[in-house]
Amino acid sequence: MEDDPPDVDPVVDATATDIAEMRIRGAATIADAAAEALATHAKRSEASSPEAFRSGMRAAARRLYETRPTAVSLPNALRYVLQGMDGETVAELRSSTAARAEAFRRDLEQAQAKLGEIGANRLRDGDVVMTHCHSTDALSCIEAALEDGKHVEAIVKETRPRKQGHITAEQLREWDVPVTLIVDNAARRYLDDADHVLVGADSIAADGSVINKIGTSGLAVNARERGVPVMVAAQTIKLHPDTMTGHTVAIEMREENEVLSTDERSEITGLEEADDGLIVENPAFDVTPPRHVDAIVTERGQFPPESIVTLMRELFGETIGEPWEA
Amino acid sequence: MEDDPPDVDPVVDATATDIAEMRIRGAATIADAAAEALATHAKRSEASSPEAFRSGMRAAARRLYETRPTAVSLPNALRYVLQGMDGETVAELRSSTAARAEAFRRDLEQAQAKLGEIGANRLRDGDVVMTHCHSTDALSCIEAALEDGKHVEAIVKETRPRKQGHITAEQLREWDVPVTLIVDNAARRYLDDADHVLVGADSIAADGSVINKIGTSGLAVNARERGVPVMVAAQTIKLHPDTMTGHTVAIEMREENEVLSTDERSEITGLEEADDGLIVENPAFDVTPPRHVDAIVTERGQFPPESIVTLMRELFGETIGEPWEA
Amino acid sequence: MEDDPPDVDPVVDATATDIAEMRIRGAATIADAAAEALATHAKRSEASSPEAFRSGMRAAARRLYETRPTAVSLPNALRYVLQGMDGETVAELRSSTAARAEAFRRDLEQAQAKLGEIGANRLRDGDVVMTHCHSTDALSCIEAALEDGKHVEAIVKETRPRKQGHITAEQLREWDVPVTLIVDNAARRYLDDADHVLVGADSIAADGSVINKIGTSGLAVNARERGVPVMVAAQTIKLHPDTMTGHTVAIEMREENEVLSTDERSEITGLEEADDGLIVENPAFDVTPPRHVDAIVTERGQFPPESIVTLMRELFGETIGEPWEA
Amino acid sequence: MEDDPPDVDPVVDATATDIAEMRIRGAATIADAAAEALATHAKRSEASSPEAFRSGMRAAARRLYETRPTAVSLPNALRYVLQGMDGETVAELRSSTAARAEAFRRDLEQAQAKLGEIGANRLRDGDVVMTHCHSTDALSCIEAALEDGKHVEAIVKETRPRKQGHITAEQLREWDVPVTLIVDNAARRYLDDADHVLVGADSIAADGSVINKIGTSGLAVNARERGVPVMVAAQTIKLHPDTMTGHTVAIEMREENEVLSTDERSEITGLEEADDGLIVENPAFDVTPPRHVDAIVTERGQFPPESIVTLMRELFGETIGEPWEA
Amino acid sequence: MEDDPPDVDPVVDATATDIAEMRIRGAATIADAAAEALATHAKRSEASSPEAFRSGMRAAARRLYETRPTAVSLPNALRYVLQGMDGETVAELRSSTAARAEAFRRDLEQAQAKLGEIGANRLRDGDVVMTHCHSTDALSCIEAALEDGKHVEAIVKETRPRKQGHITAEQLREWDVPVTLIVDNAARRYLDDADHVLVGADSIAADGSVINKIGTSGLAVNARERGVPVMVAAQTIKLHPDTMTGHTVAIEMREENEVLSTDERSEITGLEEADDGLIVENPAFDVTPPRHVDAIVTERGQFPPESIVTLMRELFGETIGEPWEA
Amino acid sequence: MEDDPPDVDPVVDATATDIAEMRIRGAATIADAAAEALATHAKRSEASSPEAFRSGMRAAARRLYETRPTAVSLPNALRYVLQGMDGETVAELRSSTAARAEAFRRDLEQAQAKLGEIGANRLRDGDVVMTHCHSTDALSCIEAALEDGKHVEAIVKETRPRKQGHITAEQLREWDVPVTLIVDNAARRYLDDADHVLVGADSIAADGSVINKIGTSGLAVNARERGVPVMVAAQTIKLHPDTMTGHTVAIEMREENEVLSTDERSEITGLEEADDGLIVENPAFDVTPPRHVDAIVTERGQFPPESIVTLMRELFGETIGEPWEA
Repeated sequence: MEDDPPDVDPVVDATATDIAEMRIRGAATIADAAAEALATHAKRSEASSPEAFRSGMRAAARRLYETRPTAVSLPNALRYVLQGMDGETVAELRSSTAARAEAFRRDLEQAQAKLGEIGANRLRDGDVVMTHCHSTDALSCIEAALEDGKHVEAIVKETRPRKQGHITAEQLREWDVPVTLIVDNAARRYLDDADHVLVGADSIAADGSVINKIGTSGLAVNARERGVPVMVAAQTIKLHPDTMTGHTVAIEMREENEVLSTDERSEITGLEEADDGLIVENPAFDVTPPRHVDAIVTERGQFPPESIVTLMRELFGETIGEPWEA
Repeated sequence: MEDDPPDVDPVVDATATDIAEMRIRGAATIADAAAEALATHAKRSEASSPEAFRSGMRAAARRLYETRPTAVSLPNALRYVLQGMDGETVAELRSSTAARAEAFRRDLEQAQAKLGEIGANRLRDGDVVMTHCHSTDALSCIEAALEDGKHVEAIVKETRPRKQGHITAEQLREWDVPVTLIVDNAARRYLDDADHVLVGADSIAADGSVINKIGTSGLAVNARERGVPVMVAAQTIKLHPDTMTGHTVAIEMREENEVLSTDERSEITGLEEADDGLIVENPAFDVTPPRHVDAIVTERGQFPPESIVTLMRELFGETIGEPWEA
Repeated sequence: MEDDPPDVDPVVDATATDIAEMRIRGAATIADAAAEALATHAKRSEASSPEAFRSGMRAAARRLYETRPTAVSLPNALRYVLQGMDGETVAELRSSTAARAEAFRRDLEQAQAKLGEIGANRLRDGDVVMTHCHSTDALSCIEAALEDGKHVEAIVKETRPRKQGHITAEQLREWDVPVTLIVDNAARRYLDDADHVLVGADSIAADGSVINKIGTSGLAVNARERGVPVMVAAQTIKLHPDTMTGHTVAIEMREENEVLSTDERSEITGLEEADDGLIVENPAFDVTPPRHVDAIVTERGQFPPESIVTLMRELFGETIGEPWEA
Repeated sequence: MEDDPPDVDPVVDATATDIAEMRIRGAATIADAAAEALATHAKRSEASSPEAFRSGMRAAARRLYETRPTAVSLPNALRYVLQGMDGETVAELRSSTAARAEAFRRDLEQAQAKLGEIGANRLRDGDVVMTHCHSTDALSCIEAALEDGKHVEAIVKETRPRKQGHITAEQLREWDVPVTLIVDNAARRYLDDADHVLVGADSIAADGSVINKIGTSGLAVNARERGVPVMVAAQTIKLHPDTMTGHTVAIEMREENEVLSTDERSEITGLEEADDGLIVENPAFDVTPPRHVDAIVTERGQFPPESIVTLMRELFGETIGEPWEA
Repeated sequence: MEDDPPDVDPVVDATATDIAEMRIRGAATIADAAAEALATHAKRSEASSPEAFRSGMRAAARRLYETRPTAVSLPNALRYVLQGMDGETVAELRSSTAARAEAFRRDLEQAQAKLGEIGANRLRDGDVVMTHCHSTDALSCIEAALEDGKHVEAIVKETRPRKQGHITAEQLREWDVPVTLIVDNAARRYLDDADHVLVGADSIAADGSVINKIGTSGLAVNARERGVPVMVAAQTIKLHPDTMTGHTVAIEMREENEVLSTDERSEITGLEEADDGLIVENPAFDVTPPRHVDAIVTERGQFPPESIVTLMRELFGETIGEPWEA
Repeated sequence: MEDDPPDVDPVVDATATDIAEMRIRGAATIADAAAEALATHAKRSEASSPEAFRSGMRAAARRLYETRPTAVSLPNALRYVLQGMDGETVAELRSSTAARAEAFRRDLEQAQAKLGEIGANRLRDGDVVMTHCHSTDALSCIEAALEDGKHVEAIVKETRPRKQGHITAEQLREWDVPVTLIVDNAARRYLDDADHVLVGADSIAADGSVINKIGTSGLAVNARERGVPVMVAAQTIKLHPDTMTGHTVAIEMREENEVLSTDERSEITGLEEADDGLIVENPAFDVTPPRHVDAIVTERGQFPPESIVTLMRELFGETIGEPWEA
């Protein structure tokens, strides 16, 4: 459907490989690296015509995109930078593109801090916050609240299977926040002691759904039943533009051994070999409908989940082609 | 408040010790052992007067009761047997009491099987059942359904912290039931594939609340939200008579190390020594209100949870003294 | 499992045939005919021993039962009559059984009127009642309210596929009750004008579920959402004892042509012959869970649906064998 | 319909007058006085035949009943005493009736204390209780909790129009319970600080509805939404037997001037004279459906509201004639 | 209030007549015809001044509008075209207006296909969709899903009174989609087998309400209760701009004989002549509040219903005069 | 952090004082006065440079702002006017600023009437509206409905503690609207007679919450439970821009003596002096979450509460500094 893509700068290749092999990981880190790679590509481009420059940029973007097509922040970064390609000469294109990439990276750097301040404003002195999984966006809200001089306590769900709650607990203890650690099963009981549920997001859909670590939706349903508001902290790089056109977010199914060790399996089946009758399902994320969420906090302000589509339209427009065609 | 209790038969002492040291455990096993000990005591009693016999029986009951006053099946067994002491001579008392103990044990032996048949009737061929924790009462429903020739599949929650879901999975695999094992956090997602939630009970209160393994209430709330009926399998020895007079059931708080190993704690706190800022709460059970439960299945039939108090009044009457005074 | 049944009186055979061929139909009519047949059988019995008498009665009951094993009122009638067989001689058995059958028929005759008075007490002067399907039990409540001098109006759902709402409308117009007839789809809109939803029941289960004409459960869910109380009128012969032991009520699937005529089918498929890709499902009943029903009105008083099991236990006891073994 | 009632003892007349003129008031006080009057009548009766005795008792009961036919405790007392008339001679009838009346009064005297102990068992040390109106049954639960050494705090709704919350506050302050007084409008906000809503009842219906001071139902709906359990304290003399046959409880409409003074009215209408366009509605009570109540605490134990009909059937049987015909 | 309107082109008159007499019907067909008529009018206009041209266009729009003022797509088309009148000379106005009309028609032609693709993205392979009434917008989602190679099955509600479900079934069978046809009353039962409810819309209001075929709202309430998401497919010509200023959408009341034939009426009333006591209410549509809808799918993307007002403001602006004054 | 503010015009000082001392009060009146003061200051400004002019305007805005920083309309007015400062010379700045202030005041003057018309469109002829507190925005909807010739009736909650319902009743009686006055406790009972709940707002937050007179949220929860839609009438000066960045709205706690007179206190405590055990909490407002509100009606159209953030972004933009820095 498209010719062979033009050559891309070696730094693009290197970044692509690092993303593919997960040496570069985390939504913000990936987005930042991709923007940086595009900037470098732009600056070093020796394209002979505006056409060629554009085509090269698109090839670079595509190369990066295809490493992890389900990482929501990656196409967002690519789109944003490519939308800034502007000019009639290669020189102009080069500088506009590089400037756009820099702007993206600068915003990105500040986004979490801004988001944190906004989220912190929802917390009162003395509040108890229940967390699920580990989210630096969510933690930045607590950090900002602490910086505002508020006393905050946390009830930390361990978050099976990977127990990322331990990382959350570690960070909170570093900040000297009193932590009560519980198994996920104990959440409903301790919701009576919580003033907020505070979680991050893997991505956010146009219909207001929040895709986040498995267990979030069950927690949110219980929080509503117990009368505890649910707050989602998510930078705008988590907004998933494909969902504006109805696409659902594919949920990664992870390895069985995060849930069940080989020894545990043998004990259950009483067999050394495989037993097809025992399947382990290990989805990484689930989907929380907007009616169970009270607010999504981004660096651009807070929104009821039903309104986040407005911000998506503002940021991405309406027509969504492939990210490298932006 | 009461004189020194009369001597009790050595078998009573032995049984009491076994219960106290948890060599005898499990609601039905405890109840059976207690009834047996009372029967033996009765048969061997050399009381010189009806008065002395009664007083000896009460002492035996009290001795047994005090080993684990929170085990709901224990006082139920004691009460039942003592209510059967009837007669005007020691001989008559001896034989009526022993007969009553036998009847209790016989009923107990059949209770689970009866309950299983009743529960099985709620399952249709091809149904998928989601389980939480390990309950032989719940499993007996599946077993009876299998015996009726129904095909049943199971989604088994692992049930942190102690992963009793593995025992459930093992039993189901032995019966060749296809099992999907999930972490507790994945429950809401897989409720869409389930036709029933099926759990046991630690005890059941007069207001229709179900006290069961931590995580049950959060599951039940999600099952209601997803439109999946919740069925509790519980022999009548799980009915908690004290709750008829408003008493709440004390929830056992278990050891931290079921949730967090010493190594994990050190990693979180970064300290070798204790960190008071990190508390682990590990309640064994939680309380599910009746509005989130569809049916309680006992060996005496099924009941909406709001009606279980009727059965309790039938079984235990209204006035509740100490179990050894029954 | 059992020897050849002894001979039964010809009247039993005749009644059985009439029930089987639906010349005798309707819950109360069937129950009455069965009780009458048993009475006749008893009176004419020439059994040579009490044993033979009992055995003959059981055979008669079984003969009747097997004509329509899913008609809930039939086993209820048989059980009730057989439970009254009492005496040491054939003469005594004969008279006690006949007397019991008479008592049953007398109660049955009065049951609807009594129920109507109780249900009428829930209606205030000026109330608007929404009905679904046709139920003489439900109508008896309105009739009694009219007799009490209350003005009542009705919103009558036509109740596809068989439009029994027309029969209801006809009866109400005869009583000069103002009727607004609507299609079933319009129910939610007109609930805002209704003070009660009033329906009958095909049968009622021990878990408080109401089995009634298809569409009842959807109406009840909407009534709860709109804040309109739902009242079920059902004589106690509708209580389904098998459900006490967990049995679910089998839902009759009816003929396609009640829903879709042959012509309509051809028009849809564009084919003369069968098209397996177009299936018509036509269940006669559905199941309304107790949380969407406010009261069940019987001739023995009104009950929250969660308590109807208490009445079932009172009427039928706990151990449920085959109806002819009662 | 009935002959002229026989003469009744002057003490019956005096008591009837005191009830009618509200010198005797309050559910328990009325019931006690009525039972005492019946006992006196029985003891002093000089009836010449058992017939005459019975007829005289019925006349006395009727005389008392007709003073305040809507006071639920009054017919309950009358029924209870008359059901105890037993014997074949006037002497036997006299003594059985008097004994029954004494038993009723003795039970009544202890009922509130027993109820209080049962209710207290639902309260934990440190709990905060929100109250509505003034109820000695509800307060007895707090009193018993205090006697058990529990610390309890209260949020007291003032309960317009008559501000009976002030009486509740006064009693609680006497017991040194910390009180936060709020207007009724502030209830939802302070539910987040409450562990229980605790109210009394004017009467309780067979369908599980609680009739209580206006505002109770709105509070209960909010308590459910906020996740706070609702507990109703009500002696069994508050159970309304007429509701078993579907009767609804008539709600007293009280004087306008409890809500609006003449001056306030003039200020609103700008008129000295009446303004038909301004109506003041002042219902004394409202009806809370059982799904918004967690437990009804009586001196006979606690019940889910959906099961209270079982207790009513136990206490009053099924057939309900006029109270003096019991 | 306004002078006699200037002459309009005969094609406008012809189109107006066709719309009025329903030879032209269906939201998109009407909008298309109106835009075409305006384009023709513009092209043929011999106005002597820009003023006259504009005045003529407005007259044409008004003529068209008044044929069916409640058809939501009609004013939308008129407004859109008139907003494109731009220029300083008659020639410029003529060409800009005609171009605008063409653009509108072009977009309109593509809208359903675009919407279908977006809606299809919400469907997964193997999904079962429940439909109500007949909507080409809704069907286009299924068509696009089929084109994507997904297997889709349908449960089709017949949709009394006019049984448009049969048309839906016919279309789906043409595409070889397996269809289960049910009466509307059976919807709740079959929701357990459905992955989506998918309906069209007659119009959509600024408060997020969906006006659609009678029965939609009752279905949506049940879908929420059963945990099935509800998706509304509606081109933006269905957005009702008047509702931005609070106007409610008038619901057409249709003929009695769609519900009840003359014969059926006679059978009910037993009368040949009219019976005022039997009223048939036959509203064409009902209103589903946004909290029971998960997503509205338009050709401009999908939206939570609470956000559709944002799209309306984008498309229509804020100040809403008469459509011909746009 | 900032230099001494430049001098401000005496009229600014005078207005500031009047606002501070509450001689100027009410959201619209304050906003109008502030805009007028800024206009006067601008017109009289003798600033020697554009810089100085701007700085003077900011100082004036700040002076005004600091009088009542929690009055939501005040910063809105200041921001709006300062955003209009435009020009390169002092003369240009002067005239642009003054013009902007005039525009603001003109819009403000019309806002309530526009809002009223929009709100009135939601009301049908014959509707019954339940009100809480006194709100001229809410009343303007009823006034416009009356002007449209609709018959409207009102159920007016008295609204303790300050009984502003009396003012509402007075206004409605002046318009000859039939009024039923009730205590706040009676609201749920009378919701069955209401077609709408109609309230104003103190301010509205970006997450869709409505801050309004204490009691609003409890009423809204009950209205949802009873199926009655809730409509909030609020001019856009009530939108609280700080909430876009997560700030919560501080709730004013008012004097005890609005709730409890000194005499009443003494009666309760039995003490002349203070009793620390009796606290009176008197919050002026509470927070209603968006899920309990159906529509917010502004002069810019109606919005689902979840979408009001879109209007806030349109009006105020995203970056929110201090109001005088706009």
